[in-house]
Amino acid sequence: MEGTQRYAIIVAGGKGLRMGSDTPKQFLAVQGRPLLMLTLENFHSFDSSMPLILVLPESQQVYWERLCREYVFRVPHTIVSGGETRFHSVRNGLQALLNGQPDGQPASLESLVAVHDGVRPFVSHEVIAACFEAAERDGAALPVIPVVETLREVLDDVGGSKNRTVPRNRYRLVQTPQTFRLGLLRDAYAQPYSEAFTDDASVVEALGHPVTLVEGNRENIKITTPYDLAVAEIL
Amino acid sequence: MEGTQRYAIIVAGGKGLRMGSDTPKQFLAVQGRPLLMLTLENFHSFDSSMPLILVLPESQQVYWERLCREYVFRVPHTIVSGGETRFHSVRNGLQALLNGQPDGQPASLESLVAVHDGVRPFVSHEVIAACFEAAERDGAALPVIPVVETLREVLDDVGGSKNRTVPRNRYRLVQTPQTFRLGLLRDAYAQPYSEAFTDDASVVEALGHPVTLVEGNRENIKITTPYDLAVAEIL
Repeated sequence: MEGTQRYAIIVAGGKGLRMGSDTPKQFLAVQGRPLLMLTLENFHSFDSSMPLILVLPESQQVYWERLCREYVFRVPHTIVSGGETRFHSVRNGLQALLNGQPDGQPASLESLVAVHDGVRPFVSHEVIAACFEAAERDGAALPVIPVVETLREVLDDVGGSKNRTVPRNRYRLVQTPQTFRLGLLRDAYAQPYSEAFTDDASVVEALGHPVTLVEGNRENIKITTPYDLAVAEIL
Repeated sequence: MEGTQRYAIIVAGGKGLRMGSDTPKQFLAVQGRPLLMLTLENFHSFDSSMPLILVLPESQQVYWERLCREYVFRVPHTIVSGGETRFHSVRNGLQALLNGQPDGQPASLESLVAVHDGVRPFVSHEVIAACFEAAERDGAALPVIPVVETLREVLDDVGGSKNRTVPRNRYRLVQTPQTFRLGLLRDAYAQPYSEAFTDDASVVEALGHPVTLVEGNRENIKITTPYDLAVAEIL
């Protein structure tokens, strides 16, 4: 494990439309700081030698750089422009690694890469470590948590009464970092885009490669609504 | 609608084992008061004329009565003893209504009954009203919220790598109050107990009766862990 180079791609594609605010959600303040900074700091404190690639829409980069100066933000990271969808954003980040960012040396296909949502600042270091370990062993890993509520499946499109209870213990809620052997992830992202690609694991699965589930931490919420933001303040 | 008698059965069966604490979770303090009191107050303020049945394990009733005196808790409610499982607890509450509690008058089979988790103090009045309306019309209704995270289905028992992404927009997380025409719920609970009965809707569905989904409010969380309790403090 020690010898394997590790990277993290932090994806911050949010346009903020869901927050009822003009500020993209990754820049909203939690504990007095833009939450994207908390996310980058969390990965930096996990392993300060691990290069961090931040994928950010081009239109937000000037604003981000201003924020970094304002907050005297010192965590080293490389900025890569985002794409049309999350798929394209991750692919851009991956391409940057393969092209030799951040240090001029193209990343080895044997190295490991964690792809993480910029709006999940609270993943635990234990979970990050467990994802890297499982990806080292199996090639692809992601953190999941149990479904606490009863789950129903809707069987018609009209949202009517055709629906049924499904056994919740057979389901898991998926978090990030989704973590992979770089060569595998490169092959996955060489596939043409499909709307079925809801996360990185689904892209890798389309290659026929299985994904190992790792136990996540429940505080690792994705901050996408004002409600989440209020919860984040106490975490 | 106005003419139809409405009842609420509040189920507080929790033994508190999951909280890492000896206090059953329904008695833990949120905003300085046992959260079961918040739940009862919420239904009382929705409709102060609606009788409330509280189903509570027999072993906790003396403690609860002491809490009510201590906190000068004035919301009228009728206490019914809980059973072995949630199914048996709800059935006991239902039986009490049919036997003429709280006012000596057996409840009409045409009346409506909302069955609600004691540890969900934050259901909105709009959601309670919408559940009663849909149950009035369709016989059975429950509130649901969308699944925000990616969802995976685990296909083997060992928790290994046989799992797959499922389209989250086809699933809903189920909350309470699950609300029914009393005659329908009585018929449902006359069935023998099955482990497949994870909530009231699944009991009604076993009769072949469909359940209408109503849009829930996201703050209506079920408080079952110290994390939930911390979230509850800010809601």
